[in-house]
Amino acid sequence: MGNLFLPKKIYIASDHAGFNLKKFIIESLKKYQTEVFDLGCDSSKNSVDYPDFANKLCDKIDDQSFGILICGSGIGISISANRHKQIRAALCHNKNTAKLARAHNNANVICLGARILKPKYALNICKTFLSQKFDGKRHLLRVEKLAK
Amino acid sequence: MGNLFLPKKIYIASDHAGFNLKKFIIESLKKYQTEVFDLGCDSSKNSVDYPDFANKLCDKIDDQSFGILICGSGIGISISANRHKQIRAALCHNKNTAKLARAHNNANVICLGARILKPKYALNICKTFLSQKFDGKRHLLRVEKLAK
Repeated sequence: MGNLFLPKKIYIASDHAGFNLKKFIIESLKKYQTEVFDLGCDSSKNSVDYPDFANKLCDKIDDQSFGILICGSGIGISISANRHKQIRAALCHNKNTAKLARAHNNANVICLGARILKPKYALNICKTFLSQKFDGKRHLLRVEKLAK
Repeated sequence: MGNLFLPKKIYIASDHAGFNLKKFIIESLKKYQTEVFDLGCDSSKNSVDYPDFANKLCDKIDDQSFGILICGSGIGISISANRHKQIRAALCHNKNTAKLARAHNNANVICLGARILKPKYALNICKTFLSQKFDGKRHLLRVEKLAK
């Protein structure tokens, strides 16, 4: 069992371009005490539309759960996820931005670009994101404005 | 006059953390044939909330104009911008993702992290974004789904 403290419930979804990275992340998170729910897609072969998978995941996220969304660049799926008022989706390309996304923005979804990041580094970015706490304080008012 | 073909109208806004980079980008774009409209903030000293400046800019963007939004990491301001259905805001950290944001996602706003990027590189990312065309084709259906 890994000693990293992760949220109890994690949802993950991707388009075809993110399928292999999704599979790798799901497999890698198995050693931690968390439940990971795979919301598709189911193959790297069949072309699907990233908004469908962003919407599917965002509808599941509540105060107790976090999300991981993956497409080719992470851009399309992050635009789509942020259409949802209860979602704060952060496109992260390194561990520093993953930390800031949680600490300053209280992000509840991380977006990754499968064609931008190497799998092991993408996993490390995810783990940094999932284990970082929100700083609150002056950042809280700004985060509250995102729900209006 | 620079020979780069840029959109005729560009809106730019930032929070206090992005103020200096905003100033640098405005100054640097002066040699190109484009109008740049500065929507604030007006100082790096007074703490402001990124959602206020994202909303101000997003309300201005139409089919003929593009936007540049800057905060510390670019994350908060990108979440806020994507709350607007007509906006496709891409957080970009290099020229490749800036190109993809236009080519695949038809992004009309670029978000930058002033604490993540060196000013000259941030400017280059911006110029790549602003001069790249949308690929259309298979990407069009996905972009249309972002407006629903």
